Amino acid sequence: MHDHTHLASRRSFVASANGHADFPLQNLPFGIFAPRDGAPRAGVAVGDMILDLDAVLAAGLLDGAAEEAAAAAEGGVLNEMLALGAGPRRVLRNRLFDLLSESSAERPRIERMLHAAKNCTLRLPARIGDYTDFYAGIQHATNVGALFRPDAPLLPNYKHVPIGYHGRASSVVSSGHPVRRPNGQRKPASEDTPSFGPSRNLDYELELGIWIGPGNALGEPIPIGKAADHIAGFCLLNDWSARDIQGWEYQPLGPFLAKNFCTTISPWIITPEAMAPFRRAQAKRPEGDPRPMDYLWNEADQAHGALELELEVFLLTPGLREKGMAPHRLSLGHASALYWTPAQLVAHHASGGCNLRPGDLLGTGTISTEGGFGSLLEITRGGKQPVQLASGETRRFLEDGDEVMLTARARRDGFASIGFGECRGAVSPAPSAR
Amino acid sequence: MHDHTHLASRRSFVASANGHADFPLQNLPFGIFAPRDGAPRAGVAVGDMILDLDAVLAAGLLDGAAEEAAAAAEGGVLNEMLALGAGPRRVLRNRLFDLLSESSAERPRIERMLHAAKNCTLRLPARIGDYTDFYAGIQHATNVGALFRPDAPLLPNYKHVPIGYHGRASSVVSSGHPVRRPNGQRKPASEDTPSFGPSRNLDYELELGIWIGPGNALGEPIPIGKAADHIAGFCLLNDWSARDIQGWEYQPLGPFLAKNFCTTISPWIITPEAMAPFRRAQAKRPEGDPRPMDYLWNEADQAHGALELELEVFLLTPGLREKGMAPHRLSLGHASALYWTPAQLVAHHASGGCNLRPGDLLGTGTISTEGGFGSLLEITRGGKQPVQLASGETRRFLEDGDEVMLTARARRDGFASIGFGECRGAVSPAPSAR
Repeated sequence: MHDHTHLASRRSFVASANGHADFPLQNLPFGIFAPRDGAPRAGVAVGDMILDLDAVLAAGLLDGAAEEAAAAAEGGVLNEMLALGAGPRRVLRNRLFDLLSESSAERPRIERMLHAAKNCTLRLPARIGDYTDFYAGIQHATNVGALFRPDAPLLPNYKHVPIGYHGRASSVVSSGHPVRRPNGQRKPASEDTPSFGPSRNLDYELELGIWIGPGNALGEPIPIGKAADHIAGFCLLNDWSARDIQGWEYQPLGPFLAKNFCTTISPWIITPEAMAPFRRAQAKRPEGDPRPMDYLWNEADQAHGALELELEVFLLTPGLREKGMAPHRLSLGHASALYWTPAQLVAHHASGGCNLRPGDLLGTGTISTEGGFGSLLEITRGGKQPVQLASGETRRFLEDGDEVMLTARARRDGFASIGFGECRGAVSPAPSAR
Repeated sequence: MHDHTHLASRRSFVASANGHADFPLQNLPFGIFAPRDGAPRAGVAVGDMILDLDAVLAAGLLDGAAEEAAAAAEGGVLNEMLALGAGPRRVLRNRLFDLLSESSAERPRIERMLHAAKNCTLRLPARIGDYTDFYAGIQHATNVGALFRPDAPLLPNYKHVPIGYHGRASSVVSSGHPVRRPNGQRKPASEDTPSFGPSRNLDYELELGIWIGPGNALGEPIPIGKAADHIAGFCLLNDWSARDIQGWEYQPLGPFLAKNFCTTISPWIITPEAMAPFRRAQAKRPEGDPRPMDYLWNEADQAHGALELELEVFLLTPGLREKGMAPHRLSLGHASALYWTPAQLVAHHASGGCNLRPGDLLGTGTISTEGGFGSLLEITRGGKQPVQLASGETRRFLEDGDEVMLTARARRDGFASIGFGECRGAVSPAPSAR
């Protein structure tokens, strides 16, 4: 299972890759980047550099399945490459690993195809056909449920059904895109009638994103044992949420404008191959919890379908920035808090016949652990217990100018640790609410 | 407002168009069709024929804005044409009207570009980026709410917020596509634990679809006064629904697998130009209902933003088919039952900054009127009062082999009435539920 591309001892001639927090030689995530004054194209992150995959292909350095995969990545979106599935992707990864390694025979040619990441713009890696957001963080569901229903935080369906809903694909943006505060209807309990204006309770949500690979035809479910084959990779995902709009609009059909104004993702697709050493057994369910139904149950998935990932959220406010202070860490959590594995989310999604397409995106739902809450709603208990910052500022919810940064890091002894790269967004003021 | 293309006296040299129930010369909807053994291309329905728009363009019969619009329609999807907005679309419509009219100087050439519709396959007219479903049928919301909450059928937000949620774009299909019964989790009140298997309460929902034209940039709302400019046309929409799956899964984030297994639309885009004579004032709100908030309020929209459309639903069962009996009419309703105008739905959707893109699709929500209910859930009161059919069959919900057909017809004295064409789907059995 762990081939040579995972060995911690293997080093790249790209000096910044060795020991890089996110992108050592062992990661090699795929994405779409635009060099200064250049057209968007496929690339691979390695250290502080980006390898131009289109150029590698054009130089004739690939053949067979690797060539097929790189050719499918041409044109500025990765959908066709994702559609190919694991086979060609793995061959391409192995070839790129060798081309970028210390002992690469092609070093001189490859060096000319590297761009400094700081001079490049990162785009969404794929055209997202549909975006679905799950609710698999059981601690989050419990925390939020408790704010509304102290006696019964989790609804009766929660432990049976991977709860999810359809999100908005058009407003998914890549890290760094400004997040404009939405106007909307809100009706605080203190007011008799709703009013329209800028959200007063703007929040973030820490999630993982799951990229869909080949997918299924309409009407043809994906068996749980095959579900992992349809996952093309992972990213970080910030499901920005306007809590006041949400509270007023969400009954009976779920969140809508409260969440569709923006969703930020980290733009690199972290492959299942890169994540292979960082899989773990699904956390044992507490005594009394139901066994997942057959269509969600697979021994191998239970044994190593979950993710070993440390997740952090940082907040940088205008006050902290002004005083040259470090971002405030809002939480430190862990992906093991997810009640369902990524494969279970995929199998459930397709279980009724809904077709998943290459480049579709799933969110896991907000990931909260004890002491590592994935939203301000939870941290401040609905705004009642503000966060105190070293700058002297306090925060119930996000203010204009605030920037939220998510990070993910996978670690395991004997393996090079990898990260997911940047997932950040700064809040800009709402447009005038006519 | 009503130009020569609306005059009932104008006739086409395409004989079947004159007096055609759906597609007289005055309609001229746009779509994508594939002739037998031919590639998909843009076309315009006229009577029982389809005019090949790509051929009209190639023959040099268009210039100026008409040429621009037709050129944008090349390539087998209409998104780029929808993006152009009303101006070029209207010029193209007027030119096609003249080319197809009785007095057309180009009749011999145009005749060679006509295909018999019965020999063609109709595709989805556009790549649907996002599909949103509203809940604007107040009678439906009241009927369904009463099944769950007899004392308070409508929630407090209903008359303030155009309630909506994101649907699934990937599973929107064109009329005629089989509708596979979904498997899913359901837990009837009579059972202690949920089980997985074929939906037992499969239903249809009668809706209108709204095609988005130019759309807006992320973060830039669409003012209500401009909202109509972003509507490229209308269609029929059947929001197939598995009521048992819905009842178990929908709390707290709304319907998901209960509705994402299939949505059927009529494949012709009925333009705002064709619908111009059939606009009406928004129905006066009952005494005591709140006035729509400013961002949803526009005098002109209130005066003629609603639709004058008669809607019918027919059911054809295996029993009726076997006995050569006519389809059973399940309902006769009217689009005036919508609590919000199409423009209000568009303005609300974009009010928080969510970007709408050309080819996005909105559903209005189920349209029910007194005695013209838009779903079996309402007609049979949750399955308690089965429908009796002339074949001797009864129906609580849909059985395998049942076919549902929706129709829409716009009529007004002095104008040729127009229809929306076919929106049908037949239920096929669920895949085996492993």
